[in-house]
Amino acid sequence: MNIKTMVIEKAKNAKKASRILAGMSTSAKNKALSAMADGLINAKDKLKKENEKDIAYAKEAGLSSALIDRLLLNDKRIDGMAGGLREIAALPDPVGEVTHIWQRPSGIRVGKIRVPLGVIGIIYESRPNVTADAVGLSIKSGNSIILRGGSEAINSNIAIADILIKSAIEAGLPEGCIQFIEITDRQAIQDMIKLDQYIDLIVARGGHELIKAITEGSTIPVAKHSAGVCHTYVDIGADLKMAEDICFNAKVQRPGVCNAMETLLVHKDVAEAFLPDMIKRFLDAGVEIRGCQKTKKIVANIADATEEDWFTEYLDLILSVKVVNDIDEAIDHIETYGSHHSDAIVTKDYERANRFLNEVDSAAVYVNASTRFTDGNEFGLGAELGISTQKLHSRGPMGLEDLTSQKYIIYGNGQIRH
Amino acid sequence: MNIKTMVIEKAKNAKKASRILAGMSTSAKNKALSAMADGLINAKDKLKKENEKDIAYAKEAGLSSALIDRLLLNDKRIDGMAGGLREIAALPDPVGEVTHIWQRPSGIRVGKIRVPLGVIGIIYESRPNVTADAVGLSIKSGNSIILRGGSEAINSNIAIADILIKSAIEAGLPEGCIQFIEITDRQAIQDMIKLDQYIDLIVARGGHELIKAITEGSTIPVAKHSAGVCHTYVDIGADLKMAEDICFNAKVQRPGVCNAMETLLVHKDVAEAFLPDMIKRFLDAGVEIRGCQKTKKIVANIADATEEDWFTEYLDLILSVKVVNDIDEAIDHIETYGSHHSDAIVTKDYERANRFLNEVDSAAVYVNASTRFTDGNEFGLGAELGISTQKLHSRGPMGLEDLTSQKYIIYGNGQIRH
Repeated sequence: MNIKTMVIEKAKNAKKASRILAGMSTSAKNKALSAMADGLINAKDKLKKENEKDIAYAKEAGLSSALIDRLLLNDKRIDGMAGGLREIAALPDPVGEVTHIWQRPSGIRVGKIRVPLGVIGIIYESRPNVTADAVGLSIKSGNSIILRGGSEAINSNIAIADILIKSAIEAGLPEGCIQFIEITDRQAIQDMIKLDQYIDLIVARGGHELIKAITEGSTIPVAKHSAGVCHTYVDIGADLKMAEDICFNAKVQRPGVCNAMETLLVHKDVAEAFLPDMIKRFLDAGVEIRGCQKTKKIVANIADATEEDWFTEYLDLILSVKVVNDIDEAIDHIETYGSHHSDAIVTKDYERANRFLNEVDSAAVYVNASTRFTDGNEFGLGAELGISTQKLHSRGPMGLEDLTSQKYIIYGNGQIRH
Repeated sequence: MNIKTMVIEKAKNAKKASRILAGMSTSAKNKALSAMADGLINAKDKLKKENEKDIAYAKEAGLSSALIDRLLLNDKRIDGMAGGLREIAALPDPVGEVTHIWQRPSGIRVGKIRVPLGVIGIIYESRPNVTADAVGLSIKSGNSIILRGGSEAINSNIAIADILIKSAIEAGLPEGCIQFIEITDRQAIQDMIKLDQYIDLIVARGGHELIKAITEGSTIPVAKHSAGVCHTYVDIGADLKMAEDICFNAKVQRPGVCNAMETLLVHKDVAEAFLPDMIKRFLDAGVEIRGCQKTKKIVANIADATEEDWFTEYLDLILSVKVVNDIDEAIDHIETYGSHHSDAIVTKDYERANRFLNEVDSAAVYVNASTRFTDGNEFGLGAELGISTQKLHSRGPMGLEDLTSQKYIIYGNGQIRH
């Protein structure tokens, strides 16, 4: 069977299963999630053995220790995947919620009801726990799922998917509702993203090149989990101690994630009071600083920030710093160089807080808090399938509701249109 | 200037204007809508003169009288366009609505607020009044708009757009917020749908080929206003008089629109009681009937429905008729051949009504009413930019709310993540 035929076959089966899954009760779905969690726990040895192959390959290929750590499955992480599935089971089921219903002069009652999307395709890289999270969220929201994980975790992913599929079917889910594409050839992605008759949403998680290729090739709507070039702007009159703690947290607490700060913007009138201590604290924590000319005048011995730095998501202990004249320049900078993910202002001023909230066009806009909070759990949505940096359908952390659509239901008693 | 440079220039200017427009007050936007309405009324003679060119060209090209009628602008239709803009001004402004706000254990308050999408591109065919509707809806929802109308109405569209742009700018809207692409070369579409850095949503209204080309070529999310292969299923035990009126209305009241019925499905146990009178009424109204074998056994002298008929959106006084064994076969037929637009059941049975509502995966699913109600005004949304037949972002009539996205706003007082 060639790649395309195989991918089409999987997509067809997923679509067929999705019709049954859409009508399943919350308790039936939760039972399956619980069975999947048990399945993972019972297969720890098998999972660790398969994971060893990926780790060995990664070492051979000379991947960095940080990347190898992302791939690793140990007892704790397997427990974590199982725990994630149980948490999803405990979340409210979004399917079937009638969000509004109203009566029209014609006498018809028009309502909007949440229904599953149908079939979700997810294309992702690296961490194997995404496989379990994505399956759990899709199943709970009544959607079939087709997974296409990266080659670096292929053995772990196949093992996880096998267990999830087996446990799900035994627990009564329809055959075909979870599909894993074992082919690591990129052709499989190109074939998958053209199957708009079977797949309703493509979730794309990965590097810039992968997301670009998917956006350009897909005939299916794409939810992009793209770059996070996040900013914090320290305003004139800000509480500088608060600003320092927020900025330090946003940069240092977990630098390798998309909601970490990449650029610090500081009002010129507080730059001299704020930057020396702040930058010292960063340097002490091992953060490399790249500053604009004004920053360099205030703090000695730091590197130049180039035009390219302002666009860059470092995902590392590197920070670009710019002194700005006012909030307008800060917002302009964010709109010009940012990625519309998460941006914060630290201020005491009511009007500028509101201006920032209104004018910064990002998925999450903060006043006086760290951008690190952009996360499904922190926002209270439960687990997330990714963080959308586009505007259609959903922005920010994609939870269960974001995996549904709303259709209209109309109750009449014989109405015709005049 | 070549086509691509011109399209990019327009898109850039639209994006720039969108930042200003997003912050404008409801009253400023309404004032502009009112000025645009006045502008159209004051330019009736000019509009009619430009429209004459399109009509002359259409006659020369041998277009059908129905199509020529769709192109025609007369006093009444210009009044209609102006009235449409005033109606949009009277609708509530969706921008700035905080739909939810909640407090998290960390102490941050997380809210969702409706904001404009930014820049909407619309690619459409035929009726020139779409130009005014689309501009009105975009401006009211705080979005810049780039219009690309079909060649058949190009003179009318340019004239309408010129007046709208002039009136809008005079009334204080930012330069560049309304852009019309005068080039009828299809290359302009291909260039436009790749500008994802400037355009946030493409609305595609037109025939199958146009929508296919846009879906395949676009790197911007596309809202498809696609085919309406709508069904009515007459259930066993239905009130046959009600069923007859609903079916007649759905097919005959306005056959050329997307929410008109194209296929009638009838339960086998009521087919003999229902079909002879129903079909006679259709034939008397000039409807051509194409039936399945069982239908042909009940009513003589009607044509065969082929496999292709079940997929066909006639947009004309033609109807395909199928006798089915039960509701399962009806739903299967709708899921197999339908376009997920609008589908109805006529029934007295509570359980089957609910099954139909739950299992038919269409933008609008009806019990005991005509599918002709799928319309922004009939649903109470006000005017609509199109009817979405996809599942992401919005399904069904796209009103003002559907032209916004929701971003997260977070109010903190120094929170950092642990």
